[in-house]
Amino acid sequence: MKIVIFGNGNVATHLGKAFFEAGHGILQVFGRNRARAQELATALEAKAVGGLAELDLTADLYLLAVPDEAIASLAERLPRLKGVVAHCSGATGLSVLGGLQDYGVIYPLQSITKSADLAIRTVPFAVEGNTGQTTALLLGLMRKISPRAFVCNSQQRLALHLAAVFANNFANALFQIAHEILQENGLPFDLLKPLILETAQKVQTHAPRDAQTGPAKRSDARTIRTHLDFIGKKNDRAEIYRLMTKVITNGE
Amino acid sequence: MKIVIFGNGNVATHLGKAFFEAGHGILQVFGRNRARAQELATALEAKAVGGLAELDLTADLYLLAVPDEAIASLAERLPRLKGVVAHCSGATGLSVLGGLQDYGVIYPLQSITKSADLAIRTVPFAVEGNTGQTTALLLGLMRKISPRAFVCNSQQRLALHLAAVFANNFANALFQIAHEILQENGLPFDLLKPLILETAQKVQTHAPRDAQTGPAKRSDARTIRTHLDFIGKKNDRAEIYRLMTKVITNGE
Repeated sequence: MKIVIFGNGNVATHLGKAFFEAGHGILQVFGRNRARAQELATALEAKAVGGLAELDLTADLYLLAVPDEAIASLAERLPRLKGVVAHCSGATGLSVLGGLQDYGVIYPLQSITKSADLAIRTVPFAVEGNTGQTTALLLGLMRKISPRAFVCNSQQRLALHLAAVFANNFANALFQIAHEILQENGLPFDLLKPLILETAQKVQTHAPRDAQTGPAKRSDARTIRTHLDFIGKKNDRAEIYRLMTKVITNGE
Repeated sequence: MKIVIFGNGNVATHLGKAFFEAGHGILQVFGRNRARAQELATALEAKAVGGLAELDLTADLYLLAVPDEAIASLAERLPRLKGVVAHCSGATGLSVLGGLQDYGVIYPLQSITKSADLAIRTVPFAVEGNTGQTTALLLGLMRKISPRAFVCNSQQRLALHLAAVFANNFANALFQIAHEILQENGLPFDLLKPLILETAQKVQTHAPRDAQTGPAKRSDARTIRTHLDFIGKKNDRAEIYRLMTKVITNGE
């Protein structure tokens, strides 16, 4: 396949390299940061370009690996293309590309960071196309990059994105609160690291509901009161404590 | 050391076995569940007993591995003892044993479950004694079971217990919510498992604040609104979403 990449961030970099290593030809890299776009283009043996006037119209795939809020306006400014245009956003519907001829989504569930050691073959890619043919094309492309690529619709992709925010961003925020509680009491965060790993490992083989332990799970009102007294009544920690305790106690 | 164990649950079982394997003599096991107490006693080459009248007064350590709410009343009913009496609770102060001569706490931070494959040498044990001598005795005892045993006071232990509730129980509850969001949308929880592991692994080497990503971190109001629309306005998920987003955006 001949591919054009828009963007020079983490997704553009990792997907670009994966496509390149899979034997596809990267024609062009578009990036507002010209130095980074040039760097990526060089690595992919592609041409770095800055303006849509230079866009190569012969590509099979145009990958919009740009920030969510830039997708719609970029799509509007694209000329008529025979290739498939795909964005990479979890929280953006397929329909944002509805003005184009053939379009789709390639959304990497895992948070893709700069670190070079990302095992892209373990990343679940959610794939969607405007037609069965486009979906099949994108799925075939991605399956060679990661066996965990799969098809889902825009509603499912948004659910996945939201679930990832709970499981990753919000869990990490809880680790941050734990870190601060320890710090305020002269204790190192190191103490909690094995427990945090164990928590993540347990849900690899058990449903989270079955893995639950602690005062809320066993309705230990005495310990819950002791904790809330320790936290102090009116702050975010107390609110989070009450809400999470309620979720564990009652189910949602 | 000569040791008497009260309790026949997970902590009693794992600590009892660890003491036994370290060469200590387990004299007696007290347990309300006679069958389980007998089973543990047999494994530890100890005597299972049911009543305090039979208590061996020659032990060096009396381990109260009983539910938190049972510690105070058990301590009150103990006869005068020359050995050290220690409870195993994170959320219970040292002072609950204040009526005794020598006393302390041995609190295993990690949630100790039945599964036999617990690597007890990786568990951080928080140790406290009523005197420097008792603290030193308990620390020496525990250091041979786990190199991660350390001394902390009752306030610190409660902070540790609370921090563990945030990092383990509440994080697991977020995994449960994520599980349900996926389930409601016909997607398997398997999709999130690598991300959950990655989240836990990242804070092994980075402070949680530095590991944070996502819409809240980058103040992406558009995606936050999309998520809240998807969740629906008035439920626990929406409240948790708003609170955690606030914590990430503003710090606590």
